[in-house]
Amino acid sequence: MPSYKAPLQEYRFLLNDTFNMAQYAKLPGFADAPMDLVDQIFDEAAKLAEEVLQPLNMVGDQVGCKLENGVVTTPPGFKEAYKTLVDGGWPALVADPAYGGQGLPNTLGVLFNEMVSSANMAFGMYPGLSHGAYSALIHHGTDDLKDKYLPKLVTGEWTGTMNLTEPQCGTDLGLIRTKAVDLGDGSYKITGTKIFISAGEHDLAENILHLVLARIEGDTPGIKGISLFIVPKFLVKEDGTLGARNGVSCGALEHKMGIHGNATAVLNYDEAVGWMVGEREKGMRAMFTMMNEARLGVGLQGLSQSEVALQNAIAYAKDRLQGRSLTGPKEPGKSADPLLVHPDIRRMLLNAKSFNEGARALLVWTALHGDLSHASDDAAVRETGEDMMALLTPVVKGYLTDRGFANAVEAQQVFGGHGYIDEQGMGQFVRDARIAMIYEGANGVQALDLVGRKLAANGGRGVFAFFKLIDDFVANNKDAKLAAYTDALIAARKDLEAATMWFMENALENPDNAGAGSSDYMQLFGVTAVAYMWALMAKAALAQLATGKGDTAYYETKLKTARYYMDRVVPETATHLARVRVGAAPLMDFTAAEF
Amino acid sequence: MPSYKAPLQEYRFLLNDTFNMAQYAKLPGFADAPMDLVDQIFDEAAKLAEEVLQPLNMVGDQVGCKLENGVVTTPPGFKEAYKTLVDGGWPALVADPAYGGQGLPNTLGVLFNEMVSSANMAFGMYPGLSHGAYSALIHHGTDDLKDKYLPKLVTGEWTGTMNLTEPQCGTDLGLIRTKAVDLGDGSYKITGTKIFISAGEHDLAENILHLVLARIEGDTPGIKGISLFIVPKFLVKEDGTLGARNGVSCGALEHKMGIHGNATAVLNYDEAVGWMVGEREKGMRAMFTMMNEARLGVGLQGLSQSEVALQNAIAYAKDRLQGRSLTGPKEPGKSADPLLVHPDIRRMLLNAKSFNEGARALLVWTALHGDLSHASDDAAVRETGEDMMALLTPVVKGYLTDRGFANAVEAQQVFGGHGYIDEQGMGQFVRDARIAMIYEGANGVQALDLVGRKLAANGGRGVFAFFKLIDDFVANNKDAKLAAYTDALIAARKDLEAATMWFMENALENPDNAGAGSSDYMQLFGVTAVAYMWALMAKAALAQLATGKGDTAYYETKLKTARYYMDRVVPETATHLARVRVGAAPLMDFTAAEF
Repeated sequence: MPSYKAPLQEYRFLLNDTFNMAQYAKLPGFADAPMDLVDQIFDEAAKLAEEVLQPLNMVGDQVGCKLENGVVTTPPGFKEAYKTLVDGGWPALVADPAYGGQGLPNTLGVLFNEMVSSANMAFGMYPGLSHGAYSALIHHGTDDLKDKYLPKLVTGEWTGTMNLTEPQCGTDLGLIRTKAVDLGDGSYKITGTKIFISAGEHDLAENILHLVLARIEGDTPGIKGISLFIVPKFLVKEDGTLGARNGVSCGALEHKMGIHGNATAVLNYDEAVGWMVGEREKGMRAMFTMMNEARLGVGLQGLSQSEVALQNAIAYAKDRLQGRSLTGPKEPGKSADPLLVHPDIRRMLLNAKSFNEGARALLVWTALHGDLSHASDDAAVRETGEDMMALLTPVVKGYLTDRGFANAVEAQQVFGGHGYIDEQGMGQFVRDARIAMIYEGANGVQALDLVGRKLAANGGRGVFAFFKLIDDFVANNKDAKLAAYTDALIAARKDLEAATMWFMENALENPDNAGAGSSDYMQLFGVTAVAYMWALMAKAALAQLATGKGDTAYYETKLKTARYYMDRVVPETATHLARVRVGAAPLMDFTAAEF
Repeated sequence: MPSYKAPLQEYRFLLNDTFNMAQYAKLPGFADAPMDLVDQIFDEAAKLAEEVLQPLNMVGDQVGCKLENGVVTTPPGFKEAYKTLVDGGWPALVADPAYGGQGLPNTLGVLFNEMVSSANMAFGMYPGLSHGAYSALIHHGTDDLKDKYLPKLVTGEWTGTMNLTEPQCGTDLGLIRTKAVDLGDGSYKITGTKIFISAGEHDLAENILHLVLARIEGDTPGIKGISLFIVPKFLVKEDGTLGARNGVSCGALEHKMGIHGNATAVLNYDEAVGWMVGEREKGMRAMFTMMNEARLGVGLQGLSQSEVALQNAIAYAKDRLQGRSLTGPKEPGKSADPLLVHPDIRRMLLNAKSFNEGARALLVWTALHGDLSHASDDAAVRETGEDMMALLTPVVKGYLTDRGFANAVEAQQVFGGHGYIDEQGMGQFVRDARIAMIYEGANGVQALDLVGRKLAANGGRGVFAFFKLIDDFVANNKDAKLAAYTDALIAARKDLEAATMWFMENALENPDNAGAGSSDYMQLFGVTAVAYMWALMAKAALAQLATGKGDTAYYETKLKTARYYMDRVVPETATHLARVRVGAAPLMDFTAAEF
């Protein structure tokens, strides 16, 4: 049976030493979260993750969700665990106090979500999707809708879902066929079939609020004619109590590779009553508002599986005796040395360790910029916050889930044959991590969003601001001890800039030149951004070591991990750049028949 | 439901145009396989794979093997399919005619096995393991043992298994506890527990021959005291009929991530009667004889899943309408363009296509050298054959299974959310491919075998011979049309040589320097070897085009695919070299507590 310990020391290092959260103490949201309170919150969250959610992870995988007579039963223990989550007030953590939330910044929310997801990714999707519905409503709903639905969504008594996909369309939502008919009283009748609806139907909460993309009859064809509706499973009466069952039902649950503990539903809408959220024909805009946040949420799922898989692989590598060190026996009194003596085992563990710590920093850094884009009283900080959040979101989603999956695979590899056996649980991490590369915009779509939309936005303001952040950091930290880290960062940044310039010079004449290099560019961006985080963390660790106080062994390890990332991971930027520069021809010269 | 078509045109291109098998027509084995006969054999094999085995692949995954009261039932249809295999004489394809085999070279055997494995990898393991047992027996068994067991193993009426792993040891077989007691009449009593025994118990054949590693009581501790035994499930009487059940039983079947159609058994030996195969305390040597062949067999499994996954991903990319081309609609009359218009979709498909064709060439080239090492009448050819087979086997096993898995993942990605759903079958390819990176020596062990054993063998004779083959090819083919391909090959070869030299200069003083870079070196070797294959194939395609005859479109596509591999895949050699040169320190400087 796998285990999980929340990496609380890592969180403190990031929030205190690296990003100095105290500097934002006067901003809204941040003011409610002094670090001693955050420590307490995280200690409690860690208990929830380790003691309540993680023990249900394997049973969730093995039993899964069942659909019988239209009723979905979640795996044994999920209902009780969800009640514990609600009783603890956790769904309210980052929600608006006006609707009962605790109003904490998302910078802290992503770390809470990482713990939940590491412990039990399939479970974490129930409150995760609710938060997506919350975001859509709070940003675009009328006051009436907000007053009616948000309080119970914030407590977690009700959950939410996002309904985009239909059988004929996933990425290309312009093809949506679900239709809405205006009933003239402010409500609509929604009819159609939605598929792949995570947390779409279940027994955890008394009501489910479905956020549904549909087209009002006669509205503009294609993506420009889509509107967004809220369709509750049970209609809600004026007094807030539940009324009749609405015309939405679960037609089937998908059998899928992983996240068995989450009900992936086919939802049939048959003249279900709904209310418009946001403006008519502006449904996609409403979706995009919440997309950055949702994509960070999926990015952290990649990290979360990499983290829990690594923890278990480390334990196995220390425990399992097999073979002898290449440099002579390290445990001569035992039948063999532990796996950990082997450099190639360490390579796999350190790939994940150096990624996890750097990727987590990038996640926090990005969420922090998202928070600052709203909370800062400085217009320049708000603009940078918005730019960095927009630019880095596809990188966090794409790079963290691609590498998170790869790390879960390597962690499984450490177990040898035992990693392939269900009872060890390593295969579940791989299978669960796999979906994060696909949903909420497949990673190829993230790469195109980065290259086609985010690079060009505001005349490239975001990417140039990102380069300037790195340049300023390097210029302001010409410290001999830091040079080992900044040198690699400079090299990565140079490759990223060269790739960026190549697109600027070649993508206008042929957009396929951008498409052909987009995935490599996203990886290149990810490596560079994480290298930047490692430079920030190395600086923080050196500063702490200079005080001679605290857990010096921890900071020494941090520097070694930084070095590993710089020495062993960063060199791949050269390959990504080379591939970007190849351009479209070697891909597009094939006719369809040649495949 | 996925489908599969055997890539027969690819086979013909390799055997005829690229490797000119006709030149070996007078050698033993090859003489029995003129190309017109090979064509007929492959046509029949393709039917078997496409029509009999592939339709059982998904049911094998979903139903799996069942153990009840010690009896294992294979998935529905497997028994009938196995009978079809036996009736067709397929298990005898590459076996020795002295025991009823058809005596064809393994060069052809690996292509037959690729078809079987693409169609149904779990099924293919039953005859695959039998062939492993066959090899052990024919090379190391006494004439008595061979006469008694080989004929029915060759027909497939009986199957075989390899019993190495025990709960406490996989890679480190010196830790084996299974013991043998000499009964003084030439037989031994075997007692112990073996785990992860593929095809270990089933209902396909009337008898199963277990090849078992054990230590005779009192023999040398560690790896040097291991002997090999044959332990039949049913004892065989003098007249060849089956006698009493032997003391071996199936204690459990593993629940595992994939290959559900193959029974992965825990086998309990309780004073089971066995006979020694090979010399006392030379069991490991007997195992190593067959290991090259077995590892090629696992390498081709990686290729096989990449091939079938790619075929289905191509079909989906042509069929699924989603989004519009970046350069304007390509199917303006339809609701959207097919996925295939997107460069990033093509990237994933071409990664797999260029790998599959190149990796298959490398598989055939390596098997051919293995065949020539026995069959050639020229001592120099035999020596090169042996050197190349030894050197490239870990590369074929490691690189083909690592990339094969990665390609199956990318093929799944082409399907978006639908790839995650069981009924599409793409997840099965990923899960099945995953085991090939682990068993028959985990890929990290392959990398160490390559770096620690194969490079150094005979003073580096093998690797220098490999470089010389490339150098001679380049020197003898200074053709302007070929330059585009040989330039990339030269670059890859240069990086591989630099990495080789780095090991030679740094691994003696610290063997961990070799261990730390071993996996990257294996990848670097794989890319270079496949680039060499692409140069050979490009030359062959150009030669065919120069005749103006044949399927010119096919040869044009071949050149485009060569170009893709050279332009988009080969650049990664620089990153692997950089990682090799980093050496051991960034990995080994961590204490155990720092993980």
